[in-house]
Amino acid sequence: MTADSQLLADDLLRFIRDKIPLARAMDLRLGRFTDDRLSLAAPLAPNINDKGCAFGGSLASVMTLAGWALVELALQRRGVDCDVFVGDSTVRYLAPVWADFRADAALAEGADWTTFFATLAERGKARIDVRCEVPGDAARPAATLEARFVAKQRA
Amino acid sequence: MTADSQLLADDLLRFIRDKIPLARAMDLRLGRFTDDRLSLAAPLAPNINDKGCAFGGSLASVMTLAGWALVELALQRRGVDCDVFVGDSTVRYLAPVWADFRADAALAEGADWTTFFATLAERGKARIDVRCEVPGDAARPAATLEARFVAKQRA
Repeated sequence: MTADSQLLADDLLRFIRDKIPLARAMDLRLGRFTDDRLSLAAPLAPNINDKGCAFGGSLASVMTLAGWALVELALQRRGVDCDVFVGDSTVRYLAPVWADFRADAALAEGADWTTFFATLAERGKARIDVRCEVPGDAARPAATLEARFVAKQRA
Repeated sequence: MTADSQLLADDLLRFIRDKIPLARAMDLRLGRFTDDRLSLAAPLAPNINDKGCAFGGSLASVMTLAGWALVELALQRRGVDCDVFVGDSTVRYLAPVWADFRADAALAEGADWTTFFATLAERGKARIDVRCEVPGDAARPAATLEARFVAKQRA
């Protein structure tokens, strides 16, 4: 990761917290960011549910934002100006989360940036599949998200 | 709907807002509640995203809570004491939402309370599929959620 990438990620987090009140309410933070993987983190307290573990809506939201930010940053680093939308997504809630948590986003199996950027250059619009997970106690994740994101070049 | 059902629904909404900080942050409200259908509502302002429409995480959260509340209320009205968890869920984001919105929850096609309660009585645990949608401008919904909820009888 270059210093520029880190700056872009920091800026994007600031933008998200500034523009999306719920991201502030969740106290969303930037975790690690490498070329292939982006982590967002959130403390348990503002994201707790009636059972004392993480609210499913918070887990889904943090995973969705991690995936969105992964795609957004890939575009920004290449200087491509797009709107990025989430399309379909599937969330699996596998185990309760009893502490502060993070969501790791990476491309889904079979998805690649090369195809995505080639399609985008050709058609002004492209989709890419992302997989996120909230790590659990053991090797098994506590929650996973598979989501399709659509990028549309701005006119 | 009986007056009792309305009271239960009001109480549940108060409980949700009291126990789930994000539900308060979203300013979640009770919409209509009939035997078969429960609506939760939320204003746009606290749920807005960077594009000025509803944040996907808010749509997913309100739909998930509407489904959860539908199952929870069905149990409470029969006096069955359970914990209710969301399992797998699929969200489709079909159109941007530019105003205050609501999520309508009902049983999914093929799901029925009779089977659910019979299984619960027999095994102390049962699952039921719920479908929610956020109505859109035209006949097409703006977002849908299909989710499986699991109820476990408390010891």
